[in-house]
Amino acid sequence: MPFSKLCINPLHAIAIFGLAAVIGSASTFSSLRVHADEGMFPVSELGRLNLQAKGLQLTAEEIFNADVTCLVDGICRVNGCTGSFVSTEGLIITNHHCAYRAIQLASTTEHDYLRDGFQAKSRGEEVPSKGYTVRITESFRDVSEEVLNVVQAEMSFLDRGKAIEKRQKEIEQQAEMDNPGLRAEVAEMFAGKTYVLFLYTYLKDVRLVFAPPASIGNFGGAVDNWEWPRHTGDYSFMRAYVAPDGSSAEYSPDNVPYRPKRFLQVAAGGVAEEDFVMLLGYPGRTARHKTSHFLQYERDIRLPQIVDLYQREISIMESAGAKDRAVALKHTSRIQSLANVEKRSRGQLKGLNRAKIVQARQAEEVALQAYIEADPTRAARYGKLLADLSRFYDELSVVAPRELTERNLTSTCRVLSVAFTVLDAAHQREKENLERESAYMDRNLNLTLQQLMLSQQDLDLPTDRIMLSEILSRLAPFTEPVTFAPVAAEAIPSRTAPTAAEIEAFVENFYSKTQFANGAFLQKCLDLPLSELLQVDDPALKLVTAWYPRLLELREVDKERDGRLNQLYGELQTVKSQYQATNFVPDANGTLRLTYGYVRGFSPEDAVFMYPFTTLKGVIDKTTGVEPFITPERIIEMYEAQDFGPFVHPKLNQVPVAMLYSTDTTGGNSGSPIMNAKGELVGVNFDRAFEATINDFAWNENYSRSIGVDIRYVLWITGKVYSAKHLLEEMGVALE
Amino acid sequence: MPFSKLCINPLHAIAIFGLAAVIGSASTFSSLRVHADEGMFPVSELGRLNLQAKGLQLTAEEIFNADVTCLVDGICRVNGCTGSFVSTEGLIITNHHCAYRAIQLASTTEHDYLRDGFQAKSRGEEVPSKGYTVRITESFRDVSEEVLNVVQAEMSFLDRGKAIEKRQKEIEQQAEMDNPGLRAEVAEMFAGKTYVLFLYTYLKDVRLVFAPPASIGNFGGAVDNWEWPRHTGDYSFMRAYVAPDGSSAEYSPDNVPYRPKRFLQVAAGGVAEEDFVMLLGYPGRTARHKTSHFLQYERDIRLPQIVDLYQREISIMESAGAKDRAVALKHTSRIQSLANVEKRSRGQLKGLNRAKIVQARQAEEVALQAYIEADPTRAARYGKLLADLSRFYDELSVVAPRELTERNLTSTCRVLSVAFTVLDAAHQREKENLERESAYMDRNLNLTLQQLMLSQQDLDLPTDRIMLSEILSRLAPFTEPVTFAPVAAEAIPSRTAPTAAEIEAFVENFYSKTQFANGAFLQKCLDLPLSELLQVDDPALKLVTAWYPRLLELREVDKERDGRLNQLYGELQTVKSQYQATNFVPDANGTLRLTYGYVRGFSPEDAVFMYPFTTLKGVIDKTTGVEPFITPERIIEMYEAQDFGPFVHPKLNQVPVAMLYSTDTTGGNSGSPIMNAKGELVGVNFDRAFEATINDFAWNENYSRSIGVDIRYVLWITGKVYSAKHLLEEMGVALE
Repeated sequence: MPFSKLCINPLHAIAIFGLAAVIGSASTFSSLRVHADEGMFPVSELGRLNLQAKGLQLTAEEIFNADVTCLVDGICRVNGCTGSFVSTEGLIITNHHCAYRAIQLASTTEHDYLRDGFQAKSRGEEVPSKGYTVRITESFRDVSEEVLNVVQAEMSFLDRGKAIEKRQKEIEQQAEMDNPGLRAEVAEMFAGKTYVLFLYTYLKDVRLVFAPPASIGNFGGAVDNWEWPRHTGDYSFMRAYVAPDGSSAEYSPDNVPYRPKRFLQVAAGGVAEEDFVMLLGYPGRTARHKTSHFLQYERDIRLPQIVDLYQREISIMESAGAKDRAVALKHTSRIQSLANVEKRSRGQLKGLNRAKIVQARQAEEVALQAYIEADPTRAARYGKLLADLSRFYDELSVVAPRELTERNLTSTCRVLSVAFTVLDAAHQREKENLERESAYMDRNLNLTLQQLMLSQQDLDLPTDRIMLSEILSRLAPFTEPVTFAPVAAEAIPSRTAPTAAEIEAFVENFYSKTQFANGAFLQKCLDLPLSELLQVDDPALKLVTAWYPRLLELREVDKERDGRLNQLYGELQTVKSQYQATNFVPDANGTLRLTYGYVRGFSPEDAVFMYPFTTLKGVIDKTTGVEPFITPERIIEMYEAQDFGPFVHPKLNQVPVAMLYSTDTTGGNSGSPIMNAKGELVGVNFDRAFEATINDFAWNENYSRSIGVDIRYVLWITGKVYSAKHLLEEMGVALE
Repeated sequence: MPFSKLCINPLHAIAIFGLAAVIGSASTFSSLRVHADEGMFPVSELGRLNLQAKGLQLTAEEIFNADVTCLVDGICRVNGCTGSFVSTEGLIITNHHCAYRAIQLASTTEHDYLRDGFQAKSRGEEVPSKGYTVRITESFRDVSEEVLNVVQAEMSFLDRGKAIEKRQKEIEQQAEMDNPGLRAEVAEMFAGKTYVLFLYTYLKDVRLVFAPPASIGNFGGAVDNWEWPRHTGDYSFMRAYVAPDGSSAEYSPDNVPYRPKRFLQVAAGGVAEEDFVMLLGYPGRTARHKTSHFLQYERDIRLPQIVDLYQREISIMESAGAKDRAVALKHTSRIQSLANVEKRSRGQLKGLNRAKIVQARQAEEVALQAYIEADPTRAARYGKLLADLSRFYDELSVVAPRELTERNLTSTCRVLSVAFTVLDAAHQREKENLERESAYMDRNLNLTLQQLMLSQQDLDLPTDRIMLSEILSRLAPFTEPVTFAPVAAEAIPSRTAPTAAEIEAFVENFYSKTQFANGAFLQKCLDLPLSELLQVDDPALKLVTAWYPRLLELREVDKERDGRLNQLYGELQTVKSQYQATNFVPDANGTLRLTYGYVRGFSPEDAVFMYPFTTLKGVIDKTTGVEPFITPERIIEMYEAQDFGPFVHPKLNQVPVAMLYSTDTTGGNSGSPIMNAKGELVGVNFDRAFEATINDFAWNENYSRSIGVDIRYVLWITGKVYSAKHLLEEMGVALE
């Protein structure tokens, strides 16, 4: 890891030492400050980080030890997010936006828990959250050799990609047979180089316990998302349940709360500016080890296309929801998810265009190439590597505009998404288990179908119709026969680009006939074998059937590309380690990682300084009474009465709301516990500053800042504002 | 004036004293800080302000003394802006945006001075700036009694309004006869209460001397406008000329530079954080003394309508200019002007919606009403005053949506604007001089017609056609006969709301026939007497002729409203002075004012702090190479070479670019000199922070901040980057 980033930017020290001091003698202060480092460290690496020197008051073994109970036993993965156990009774704290889908599914227009918040007064009132799972990392081991020994030199890239994928599945299957009740996942740590088998406790009965209203949990909405200053109480409580014998089980009223091996102690006093903090969690994806060509592809092709399409989809759903709260409730979760990606993508585009990240990586590559060419043996083996990677992304850039649009056909239109999954499942179930796509393997099929049924519940046909029309219009300019053929075969006479009127006529007929809005019809289709399914007369099924060969082709293309990149990046990693003679931290890949840093402000631009705590006063200041800046009357009253209980920032004399700290996070770290130097819970991570959306490509001490909700706001809202005293009691927190 | 705002907001002290210090002991520091006060003070009031206690190192008499030369003799009004003389040879510094129209008119596609900047290498190369005038305040005296003694109790509001207007004109005419060569203006200081006669030296030969490229002078464009942090080099140099005998004269090659009685010494070292600064200038309009009902009218009716219409007009012009640089050049000045008002209006809307200004003023009015009712005599005289004002704005709010749209007919469409002025001038010239609207009185007519010819030069018929179509569509819903009748009479069969197709047919015919794009035709029309003009067959003339009775009606409505408000606000002022037993500072009205404050950052919102200087590094950081963030290559090179000469902020070790200070400014203060405690020039004022757009309604020490360009950036750009050493020499500034 690069431990060399010790230079100080005089501007971001200002929030702490004062401008006059810093400007007068910035260098005096640089030695006083300890810096965080880039890195989402695998917990196996903690021993060599010397975290005590950075401020940690625990030993590395107290955080992770394969043999005895340790801090990581208190951390879990909640679907794509992270959660922490905060009681012996399986109580989990995570983000409001992570529980969002559960709150949405529990809501009706009569009981609108999104709008009003939710509180189970007793265990019996806790609401089963369909589609939610909880996993806890139990152990892991390196399986790189087992995986890579299936690769043979003469293999095509496609065969290479397929062989590696199949071997991973075999290892997982074997591990689950050897460890009954546990779930196994092989994770690629370095493409083409390192693979690790993780074993997880896997819980399938997860329930909603407490959620503040969205006006708190999503205060600021898409406007404030990815931004500091932030005033969002983005937390909720859930609870994991197991069978009475302690084994993992689907929901049953007989289930009992899961008893975690370890839970996190809540530190109700919170942290102060410059305090050491660390996060454990399951960060999803980063691209720190990708080449400059990948960054250019993202900047020039993929991100702009995402921003454009998602903005359109969001605007379609918002228009539809503006007239009807029931329709709005159906779209809310999808809007939130798309808006999140759309704004992050914009932040990344801004960063890629302004932060000179591409140029910096190009410079690294020039140096690496010179190193390679300095030695004939290296030159022979690695000489063309960067050129090959460059060609790969050049080729990808040519086909991507069309391919990205094609792939969106079955994500933009929900009826097609449902019909496609039904057809795909029928095809896949005819194969051997290990030959199937992962989502359709026996171990995953139930969850896949459960999520399909949930997704169908959100279907609003009038909205969906506009979505289909939109995506077909975007496909129309790609006049290659294969692209528009399925639509053409259905309704449009020529194979040339269809006109808007032809698309409208097709869509009109499509929605007058499809039955996929009907749950019973969907269930019936799911039960049919492939041969009978193909006889069902529904326009959505016909379209995806006509389309299916192309999607299978795209799947093969993906595996071929994976195989190619796998080989190229594997080689790149090898020669880079020789060149830099250092260890690398693997890119995030959804496995358990630790990151640490400090509660610290920053300067996002010339003459602007961000302080690392926001306050309840700021919530009141932002409140306009109009979405997304509505604040419950009770909060305003308690603010005016200064009824803060013990949950006050001693220097600001206010309830602190959100905090900023210099850790290295990405998506998947949502819900991660923010822990102090003793490993106690002081907040819940939920976002990054706009400047830090670029984290996924490059981390920087000057602007990479994560955002979390302060534990004092969590406790004030839960215990004081909504009087859920039993929850504070369960966590061992005093209310006065 | 309210001198009671001495409480300190702990947050905005942070930029100076450091967060830790301030949060730890805010109260310790509050006594160290001197505060500015609300107020754009008439220079006659300076004696009672005790500015030495605030930091001024001059006496009030050194700033203004009616009898001897003083600082205000170095200040001038440049059209709607302010300028300062900076040499004995009539050299004026003002804003780039104030000289914008001059730079635009001097530019062609071959010599694009907006894009490339302009520099006269000798006096002979200085470009006459048509439509520009310079005025210097010579003296003033209270004429309230002379004005108000024409008012009789039994007068209708209309008669009252007309009588006051006419008496003002008479006083001005008499004063100009008594003071040959000077210009006289009677200004209303307090509506219905106080009137002051100002005498001005009035110079009509103004020339462009130096302008940086718009990429410097308008860096950040509409994106950064009204925002801090700011990186705009918003300054230009002009020069005033007079006849060889020293008298004011229209442009002539024989003219010689004007020799001001006083010029401002440039302080090339600039100022530091917390230094005292003061501005002299000609602030345009504020509404601090208007009631809550006015604020509600602005918030709910007028500002939203402006934002909506201007956004549309800007987008029409931008689309047209995107294809053709020559068209873009025609529109650039108007776009800049509309965008400026549009964004300010949005800022004001945000402020009115969030800052609780309306509620505060309502509370003041409740207290005032209680005071009035506490005494039977007062109750009898003033008891219904606030209710009358409330009713006035209620009635206005009902008719305003239609009236505002009607008034925009001849501002949105330029052909109609030209045709209307031609028609109006012909009508008005048939009247006695004193009976005419001010713009058509003998003393103003030349300038009015000169500006008409200039405005016609910017005409782009394809754009104008879309504008007419737009404003007619906005008029269409107002189906009162009088509103659409002129259009209906021309081309549309029924008097009901015309359809889009009818409007398009009308517009098509209109632009196929009108000749007002032809300068010779325009000149010919201007020369015709009314009776002959009415015979000219042009659709634009026909439309404005049909429309004219309604516009005359609106003019009468305005005078009636003025008379009514004049009386009501006059009474309000009287009872408020009794109630508060204090002096008031009059609202800005385009007359000479002084405001003072400190170079000081602020906290625009929870957890955000603004430092009061930006730097050249910030310019480089913001530079994207895409409008409006393009930076000339030479600046980037000199930045990289750290070739700053002596123009460096000693603590930031950078060329400072813009600065922030707590003065009380509004439109018209553009170009105002920022002066240090000795009255030396340290920068040029050009904007306010977004939070301070609300200044026009209410000033606040916490967020009212003005923005100026630092003199060090001015000198670095002028002397180092563009090597205009002769200008620095003329100002007495050393380059090394």
